[in-house]
Amino acid sequence: MELWPNGSRPTRPAPAEYFTGTVWQDPICEVPEPGRLRALLVTFAPGARTNWHTHPLGQTLYVTAGCGRFQSWGEPVQTIRAGDVIWIPPGEKHWHGAGPDTMMRHVAMQEVQDGVGADWLEAVSDAQYRGET
Amino acid sequence: MELWPNGSRPTRPAPAEYFTGTVWQDPICEVPEPGRLRALLVTFAPGARTNWHTHPLGQTLYVTAGCGRFQSWGEPVQTIRAGDVIWIPPGEKHWHGAGPDTMMRHVAMQEVQDGVGADWLEAVSDAQYRGET
Repeated sequence: MELWPNGSRPTRPAPAEYFTGTVWQDPICEVPEPGRLRALLVTFAPGARTNWHTHPLGQTLYVTAGCGRFQSWGEPVQTIRAGDVIWIPPGEKHWHGAGPDTMMRHVAMQEVQDGVGADWLEAVSDAQYRGET
Repeated sequence: MELWPNGSRPTRPAPAEYFTGTVWQDPICEVPEPGRLRALLVTFAPGARTNWHTHPLGQTLYVTAGCGRFQSWGEPVQTIRAGDVIWIPPGEKHWHGAGPDTMMRHVAMQEVQDGVGADWLEAVSDAQYRGET
């Protein structure tokens, strides 16, 4: 077994090219082959969000704190809260993030296919974030 | 996408044949094929623990509350605390649970192989739980 005590791995800023606003990532796991699981704790400051993106084998989000937003392409923006679970099927274009005035934190779990866990697309515009388009 | 709001799925008691003491399970996900991920939130009352068991593709534990115990077969009992992450490789015999006086809650993440996420073995004796053997 391998144990990573709380505090033993640095929090890192999420890559700016795939996120808007202040987003922090804490590693949970990158399971070795033949396992495929990648899990991260992700913390979004108010107004922060991912770019639009898809996952080759889907993604599960488990919201652990706060209140945020989620949208699948062509669907309305939804509110998500601590304790909610969201499943995004393979290939479904979507984004997730904080509320405009509230932080949101989730565990993000996805399986890699050929080493790829996410395919990143364009940023979520302010109008999209506000649900105006 | 599919959204399960907090409170929309019942908490269930863990199966008594595989656990000792009071253990509650909250579902997170059972990802459809070709995905393999199974995730659960598991809450152990003081003294409660899993049986000895193994996982065909390993398991990741992310401790979200409390202070508990973990042991791999032939190794000493270890203390685990909120924020710790534990990786158990495929086939490694182990158990996890609460401390004798403190609850422990973790997210348990494992991938299924041929539909199987865990292979269950004998109960953890009181002497094993206390680290006396």
